[in-house]
Amino acid sequence: MGTHSLESYMRQVGADARAASRQLAAASTADKSRALLAMADGLAAGRAALLEANARDVEAAVSGGLEQPLVDRLVLDDAAIDRMIEGLHQVDKLPDPVGEVTDLVYRPTGIQVGRMRVPLGVIGIIYESRPNVTVEAASLCLKAGNASILRGGSEAFHSNQAIAAVIAASLDAARLPRAAVHLLNTTDRAAVGELLRLAEFVDVIVPRGGKGLIERISHESTIPVIKHLDGVCHVYIDADADVDMAVAVALNSKLSKFAVCNAMETLLVAAPIADRVLPALGDGFAKAGVELRGCARTRALLAGARPAAESDWREEYLGPVLAIRVVEGLDDAIAHINTYGSQHTDAIVTNHYGRARRFLAEVDSASVMVNASTQFADGFEYGLGAEIGISTDKLHARGPVGLEGLTTQKYVVFGNGEIRHR
Amino acid sequence: MGTHSLESYMRQVGADARAASRQLAAASTADKSRALLAMADGLAAGRAALLEANARDVEAAVSGGLEQPLVDRLVLDDAAIDRMIEGLHQVDKLPDPVGEVTDLVYRPTGIQVGRMRVPLGVIGIIYESRPNVTVEAASLCLKAGNASILRGGSEAFHSNQAIAAVIAASLDAARLPRAAVHLLNTTDRAAVGELLRLAEFVDVIVPRGGKGLIERISHESTIPVIKHLDGVCHVYIDADADVDMAVAVALNSKLSKFAVCNAMETLLVAAPIADRVLPALGDGFAKAGVELRGCARTRALLAGARPAAESDWREEYLGPVLAIRVVEGLDDAIAHINTYGSQHTDAIVTNHYGRARRFLAEVDSASVMVNASTQFADGFEYGLGAEIGISTDKLHARGPVGLEGLTTQKYVVFGNGEIRHR
Repeated sequence: MGTHSLESYMRQVGADARAASRQLAAASTADKSRALLAMADGLAAGRAALLEANARDVEAAVSGGLEQPLVDRLVLDDAAIDRMIEGLHQVDKLPDPVGEVTDLVYRPTGIQVGRMRVPLGVIGIIYESRPNVTVEAASLCLKAGNASILRGGSEAFHSNQAIAAVIAASLDAARLPRAAVHLLNTTDRAAVGELLRLAEFVDVIVPRGGKGLIERISHESTIPVIKHLDGVCHVYIDADADVDMAVAVALNSKLSKFAVCNAMETLLVAAPIADRVLPALGDGFAKAGVELRGCARTRALLAGARPAAESDWREEYLGPVLAIRVVEGLDDAIAHINTYGSQHTDAIVTNHYGRARRFLAEVDSASVMVNASTQFADGFEYGLGAEIGISTDKLHARGPVGLEGLTTQKYVVFGNGEIRHR
Repeated sequence: MGTHSLESYMRQVGADARAASRQLAAASTADKSRALLAMADGLAAGRAALLEANARDVEAAVSGGLEQPLVDRLVLDDAAIDRMIEGLHQVDKLPDPVGEVTDLVYRPTGIQVGRMRVPLGVIGIIYESRPNVTVEAASLCLKAGNASILRGGSEAFHSNQAIAAVIAASLDAARLPRAAVHLLNTTDRAAVGELLRLAEFVDVIVPRGGKGLIERISHESTIPVIKHLDGVCHVYIDADADVDMAVAVALNSKLSKFAVCNAMETLLVAAPIADRVLPALGDGFAKAGVELRGCARTRALLAGARPAAESDWREEYLGPVLAIRVVEGLDDAIAHINTYGSQHTDAIVTNHYGRARRFLAEVDSASVMVNASTQFADGFEYGLGAEIGISTDKLHARGPVGLEGLTTQKYVVFGNGEIRHR
């Protein structure tokens, strides 16, 4: 596509999405449910075609020399399709957030003022290889009453187009506009740049992918971005921690999964308890093959630990490496976390009431925990039912973002002809 | 100040504000109250010095040829100082939003998950001539537990410095860090540009001023901006409106004040009721000296109206001019508002239940009203107690922004040693 035709294609996509968003905002819960269940049925019925389309993508990726982890993320099998279908049923069962009115009160003037939850409008989602994101993103945006413009990875082109055909048929079946979910049908990288300039038509951009992608999009976008950057998560073992609990929580925070944003990357240990927890932790991490990098006091207790460099305190390893620092106590721990952390998820292990309260109040992160594994920081575990991502921003949505994060609130005023006297 | 020294001054201001914000986030309601009441007392005690400083600003403004409306906004008298003092007492009496925990529930895993309201951190406020904004902005940010960096208009420099001296003494008296409220002590315009680049230290920018200022800041800022652009507000008189109520609401929506963002700029009238409401409205607006610009059907009923151009439907007059359009009915009215409006405040006058509900749901504006004057769209009228501004954004804060808009929510998790099983 030429530059001019790409720009006009994208502007048409934006205008159509804006128009569709007006219809979706007014769609009933039943309308949206019909579309979601039709998508689930359509994926089941179109399973063979989807597997075939995916096989084409995988073949091209392998012959094109795509790295194996990315190929793994691209592959769809029967179990993956079953999970997509199950996910659609789960989203369908979530309460519809649209139209909820809260805080409706009478004011002294006689007007009644409240807040109504409403869709954001049009949401642009830019993501990488996993084709299941197409279904997740489309279904969450739809349930929250938003139109969506989806830009999947070029390596998943055929899989995504097959899914898009199912979605289009489902929207038809539910008599919702096709432009309610628009998967871009171009692999032109310039389409992303055009999308980020459609501020007139698109209300928010949600990028899902590696840090490089997200930083580039945030930098380039003229539209607000709900973004997830680093997860440099900490567990702080307080002097008054239960030793067994501290060991269990710290091991789980690292070992439950390595390559997730809510995995612990730095362990902080209060000096008075260090000699009681670090040896057991050293054994546990050694068994799991985790490389330890510690401060001098850590290394005095853990012979196997390498020296930590200043840069280790800011590192998101996403793998079997852990930084460990012995600190004097709570003040040092909070200062360390607020200095080096990424405001994602941080936990204290303690039985001290006052220090637990201070940690909760003073650690400036999206999720702050007492006596629980950082790996609980997740939309499903928090009861959001689903998650479009985890936000490391402070404005609008902080932490796991579910349906509520895809909506906003407007003020509604009910009167009986009141006028303002000044 | 040279470029280099300005940059290092601003980075120091940012770093100090960030450090102060940590202390403020942990400050008790009583600490903050002491500071707010000390400010009120300090303004009363320092009244003479403040009036003298203000007189210097006004003299310079007049001799420098500043336009009269801007000079008027600059002038402080005893009544204005009394209002500042009263405002501080009001902010002090507002409930402290910080630390409120909501939605705390047990999850099947045993962890207890909720959301805690916390300060945003550091807020940069950029504003024009009114010196009272210095007190309002500082007190609202402080009450919400945020540090603030204030950049006032150069024409109010001496007034603002006098107020800043009172604020500094009040912070000392309350044993809060002076960097909790930092008024920039330079009139160098480049300081604004530097402030907008302090993303590391500043969490949000709130510009207050004309549209030009706000557009420039939004464009230039690397920090999220809570902004207010146009207020192109509508009243739609439905076919089933009470005629007297419709006339009263439409007149008040325009006439209560002209130069406010919540004043009606376009009146929409359903065709079946036009001949019953337009003549009375024409008389009312004529008496008040309002110039009317109407569509052809409007002019058939109002001989005095001039023809409206397409551009009139997008105009924020902020003065005694009104655009009027006769529409077929609700669908046309909603389409007009969502096309030409600025998503600020829009009202319907009707006794039709279904159309009132549809207007509320389908008009995509920050405030949507039934049978009430648009001029009620205001933080005080809505019961927020105070207002830092009215947001026309959809994300984070929409409509009048009070203390809640100066905070965010983080997730808090209480456990008993739970770990995640996958």
